[in-house]
Amino acid sequence: MRFANSGSEAVMMAIKAARGFTGRPKIAKFEGAYHGSYDWAEVSLGSGPDEWGPLEAPASIPYSKGTPASVLEDVVVLPFNRTELAVARIEREAKNLAAVLIDPMPNRVGLIPARAEFLRAIREVTAVHGICLIFDEVISFRLGYHGAQGVFGIRPDLTSLGKIIGGGFPVGAVGGRADVMAVFDPRGGKPLVPHGGTFNANPVTMAAGLAAMQLMDEKAFDRLDEVGGKLRSGVQACLERAGVPGAVTGMGSLFRLHPAERAFVDYRSGVASEAERVRLDRLYRELIDHGILLAPTGLGCLSTAVGEAEIEYFLEVLNACIHNGDSA
Amino acid sequence: MRFANSGSEAVMMAIKAARGFTGRPKIAKFEGAYHGSYDWAEVSLGSGPDEWGPLEAPASIPYSKGTPASVLEDVVVLPFNRTELAVARIEREAKNLAAVLIDPMPNRVGLIPARAEFLRAIREVTAVHGICLIFDEVISFRLGYHGAQGVFGIRPDLTSLGKIIGGGFPVGAVGGRADVMAVFDPRGGKPLVPHGGTFNANPVTMAAGLAAMQLMDEKAFDRLDEVGGKLRSGVQACLERAGVPGAVTGMGSLFRLHPAERAFVDYRSGVASEAERVRLDRLYRELIDHGILLAPTGLGCLSTAVGEAEIEYFLEVLNACIHNGDSA
Repeated sequence: MRFANSGSEAVMMAIKAARGFTGRPKIAKFEGAYHGSYDWAEVSLGSGPDEWGPLEAPASIPYSKGTPASVLEDVVVLPFNRTELAVARIEREAKNLAAVLIDPMPNRVGLIPARAEFLRAIREVTAVHGICLIFDEVISFRLGYHGAQGVFGIRPDLTSLGKIIGGGFPVGAVGGRADVMAVFDPRGGKPLVPHGGTFNANPVTMAAGLAAMQLMDEKAFDRLDEVGGKLRSGVQACLERAGVPGAVTGMGSLFRLHPAERAFVDYRSGVASEAERVRLDRLYRELIDHGILLAPTGLGCLSTAVGEAEIEYFLEVLNACIHNGDSA
Repeated sequence: MRFANSGSEAVMMAIKAARGFTGRPKIAKFEGAYHGSYDWAEVSLGSGPDEWGPLEAPASIPYSKGTPASVLEDVVVLPFNRTELAVARIEREAKNLAAVLIDPMPNRVGLIPARAEFLRAIREVTAVHGICLIFDEVISFRLGYHGAQGVFGIRPDLTSLGKIIGGGFPVGAVGGRADVMAVFDPRGGKPLVPHGGTFNANPVTMAAGLAAMQLMDEKAFDRLDEVGGKLRSGVQACLERAGVPGAVTGMGSLFRLHPAERAFVDYRSGVASEAERVRLDRLYRELIDHGILLAPTGLGCLSTAVGEAEIEYFLEVLNACIHNGDSA
């Protein structure tokens, strides 16, 4: 493991490790997924229907104005949960691919869990072609005691971490296969991929992070699964009773409210229409008025401090908001 | 101002701001200078004589194995403190340059202060061509109450900060001209250059940083200048008395020991020979044995906790080490 100061830095170091290990320039990532501020990882984030191109070869869309054209050329965008299309595109680009970067339950893709056979196929095609499979678990590590990779039963080559592992302090981390991580090893002189940083592995973050991780034992995860499950089934019931279009996605301590009812499969099916966005925004603001802060995307995270009373309150407020003319 | 979690992130955001503001893809930086882990900022760091090319157009040398070729193509490397050569190269590349990135007293270039006329010329040519001048003050902000830009009397378009402004906690920041910083403004919808991050401007770093900055008043800087001056002139006297080749560079609270005596002007003149490196390394280890920790490059930083007694002790130990057969 090596430590950094943010999830963005964790993803950056994972990508640099993969490039250094493979000697290849490109990375592949899934359409619409968020992985922090590193230019290559940002490509196609939030792309819209007028620009995103064919599903079998989604376009490399810049997220930031001024993204160099060369960055767009070095990113291969893949459709999430579309096994055949994604595998075919990886195979076409394989000889130039250093890494495939994936969050197995990406919030910006709709907080839709990856399908088991999809993940297995991605693991297989990357292994066959010597491409590093990077799991970005900056968010999804909180899905289980062994992280999202434990829940999904997939062993990536590299894992990026952040958020909860710092116990509230700024943190990022990258870890994985010993032969890949060896690119950072300074013991034989200048490493292939040097990784310095004033605040990396600083003692306050390390102490707070260790304490948080020790408290997050298997029991704590079991309880979060239970509480999360109650919340999601409660939201579902509430929507059905009210007869308004809406859905809830997620697993464990993560949930996301959608202002629509349809099959959420990939990024494109998850993107809200303008009318849906307006409704979600109204709900988001109404929840704030009742002391409940979701992300503007409709994402919510439960912590170990949340119990029955908070779930009940959340469902009560949601119910009132929906009957008030809004919908999830 | 916008806050991030490291100097690397601060430099990354400054470069992204410059690209977003100008719509141009390239940046220029000075040969050998360190600016953190962001790929473009890392180009030419630590380059050696067998690869660095002509002084009027230093080569873009990768620092990390696996740096994409496109990154090298998008970086223009300039010779530090060589006014005519640097200005000529900026003019040749002007229409593609989003930014010129400079630390006005870069440690890896030898901790040599930029010449006044050199900085004025860089400021002028960047202004004429609408190129953002980025001062990387992650290290050099500690040179004065108004930062390095106050000491050198230059107003950059953007400034990257880190290290001391966090009061010991992970931090980075970027600030500058209102019209350039407007690329980050989220108030009118999605900004041109979105800048998110879980730990950006987190309350602990902000509180600790504010406290540190309030304690670093003009008096504190005056005292650091005095203490630093005493240390540097003491080192110089010590070297002269011993008659061994060596030099000390720096300003204010920063100093760097060189295992050689020559005119330090730019990166190339500052690079140590193999024999010099061995001598510096021996001194570095001997100082550690006496409880004094410099950076392996010979860089030292004084804090407000350092007084006469510490300076005397340092000079005493240095003197003994030099007479012991080593030299600075």
